[in-house]
Amino acid sequence: MDIKKLVKPDIRSLRAYQAEEIPCRVKLDANESPYSAVSGQRSAIGFKKNLQALNRYPDPQAASLRKLMAKELKVKPQNILHGNGSDELIYNLITVFGGPVLYPVPTFSMYGIISQALGERKIGIPLDNEFDLDTDAFVKTIKRRSPKLIFLSSPNNPTGNCFSEDRILKIIRQSKGVVIVDEAYQPFSDRKSFIPLIQKYKNLVVLRTLSKIGLAGLRVGFMIAGADIINEVNKVRLPFNINSLSQKVAEAALQNKKQMRTDIRLIISERKRLFKEMGRMDGIRPYPSDANFIFFKAENGDRIYGDLLKKGVLIRNMKGAADSCLRVTVGTPAENEAFLKALEQIL
Amino acid sequence: MDIKKLVKPDIRSLRAYQAEEIPCRVKLDANESPYSAVSGQRSAIGFKKNLQALNRYPDPQAASLRKLMAKELKVKPQNILHGNGSDELIYNLITVFGGPVLYPVPTFSMYGIISQALGERKIGIPLDNEFDLDTDAFVKTIKRRSPKLIFLSSPNNPTGNCFSEDRILKIIRQSKGVVIVDEAYQPFSDRKSFIPLIQKYKNLVVLRTLSKIGLAGLRVGFMIAGADIINEVNKVRLPFNINSLSQKVAEAALQNKKQMRTDIRLIISERKRLFKEMGRMDGIRPYPSDANFIFFKAENGDRIYGDLLKKGVLIRNMKGAADSCLRVTVGTPAENEAFLKALEQIL
Repeated sequence: MDIKKLVKPDIRSLRAYQAEEIPCRVKLDANESPYSAVSGQRSAIGFKKNLQALNRYPDPQAASLRKLMAKELKVKPQNILHGNGSDELIYNLITVFGGPVLYPVPTFSMYGIISQALGERKIGIPLDNEFDLDTDAFVKTIKRRSPKLIFLSSPNNPTGNCFSEDRILKIIRQSKGVVIVDEAYQPFSDRKSFIPLIQKYKNLVVLRTLSKIGLAGLRVGFMIAGADIINEVNKVRLPFNINSLSQKVAEAALQNKKQMRTDIRLIISERKRLFKEMGRMDGIRPYPSDANFIFFKAENGDRIYGDLLKKGVLIRNMKGAADSCLRVTVGTPAENEAFLKALEQIL
Repeated sequence: MDIKKLVKPDIRSLRAYQAEEIPCRVKLDANESPYSAVSGQRSAIGFKKNLQALNRYPDPQAASLRKLMAKELKVKPQNILHGNGSDELIYNLITVFGGPVLYPVPTFSMYGIISQALGERKIGIPLDNEFDLDTDAFVKTIKRRSPKLIFLSSPNNPTGNCFSEDRILKIIRQSKGVVIVDEAYQPFSDRKSFIPLIQKYKNLVVLRTLSKIGLAGLRVGFMIAGADIINEVNKVRLPFNINSLSQKVAEAALQNKKQMRTDIRLIISERKRLFKEMGRMDGIRPYPSDANFIFFKAENGDRIYGDLLKKGVLIRNMKGAADSCLRVTVGTPAENEAFLKALEQIL
């Protein structure tokens, strides 16, 4: 029996997401925070009690967690839905609304990968020379192809910049489908969040995650939107999508945000320092960033990536998405120092 | 903007899965184990270290966990894939192969719910009078409708029995699509597992879960199949689908199985006792069970359900799936005693 022949055509040509582990001394490739948001909170989490209750299913509504996040974001709990990472919410959104799915390129790869996995058409529109949205191309494509979903990651991964607010707004207003502003990196930016606009624009969804602010291991993401969208997406959400331990630990983190905020401030100041130091070097061009990483162009990206790795420093080679471009995550001051030193030596 | 109009037609008519919390003293409604499999294993889990590493993404391959489970099930790690509960693997399987999706009724509701969420046709074939598979009807439907997927939960939820081995085998042989034997409740049965047959039948998938054996809160499920199927399903799996804490706790549970095995033996012996005691009562008819619950018919199911709840005992009313039928999960000896006492009083 040929299993391949049984598989849906879109899946046949799909490749499994490669998240291979590359051994290294300094890991600056995955836009993780260098600090765990709950490293000292064992007592707050109450593991003894939680381990004892693991025979029970998790709270399907994640009520306490949603309430805490709602307070943090100043919205109502009914405007928040929880995902096993925002990945899962992207999956759910595409399941509910279908395609075509529109997004700029380069951007977060999962929009395209999940669209293909679900057999939906996907359309990528190149960013302009300043890595901002090409509004004309978006408006034309909206008219011609009527995309059901538009994903805008702002700050954008991998370029690091926020898109212009007025361009995002124009796309939201022109779109007859749902527009998702993915604010995974917003905590590192001083731009305003789009969350307050969910009241005004019924087709607006904002995504948030705990993955970039010290809790990637938990898999907790959120979507914020009007009740109509929340209700529809909730229909395809698996009932027990966030396990009990992740719910508890995320709650503890949101109840003790001091450490998280200190960490974010340090990451922002280190990002500024990295940008300045990298700007002084010949042969590379760093771009300003509103996120916890820096995107940079290099004359020979492949060589730099490989030479850094030889020195134990792992960053992300953006080849394919953006040729001759690399992305380095902001680490601890010591990790950033190690990266800068290694980079200087190999340039 | 009318969000409903944007939604795919199959989703419009879907209702969100109702997993509401009903306050009770004795909770026997959800086929959970009454015992956590890791209640005393704090030290084995090493929470301090794990909390410190939560800023990092989980192992996307769940390599250690898969290796341990492979050893437990006597298969190779490449024949196992991990899901955020087996729910997610059902979702992934339907994403990859599409429909029509065939299953007996009544059975686990998620096969039908997820099929609808993904816009795939679903076909339910009534069980025969002994709650076994109606092989003739299955074979006819296989010929006429060429189902891409057939889900057989054995032991079956909610009826509690295993289907005849020869009927399952006939369906596997006749099917040109993939046949999934969902062995969520197999640890409570003395029937042979279908796992060794994945070598012989390339279209066979077996599902397993930790949810019924003391770890429902973790969300850890597994599919066991030939490498061809594993590779295709892996393409649509979200890379970080099992969080770091669940991986660690599940590993600890699989490394210390003594408690788990003792608990399973106790549940089986309590199931036998429950069945015997219930068999003595007038007005109800319990069915033999290979699972951690007992399915029973009652003259007035609704009233019994409501009266038990008034006494603080929550069981599952199967109305809709099987009229005048109820399902009680095997609890601790004290919980079972409370259930039996309450039942006797209200009958």
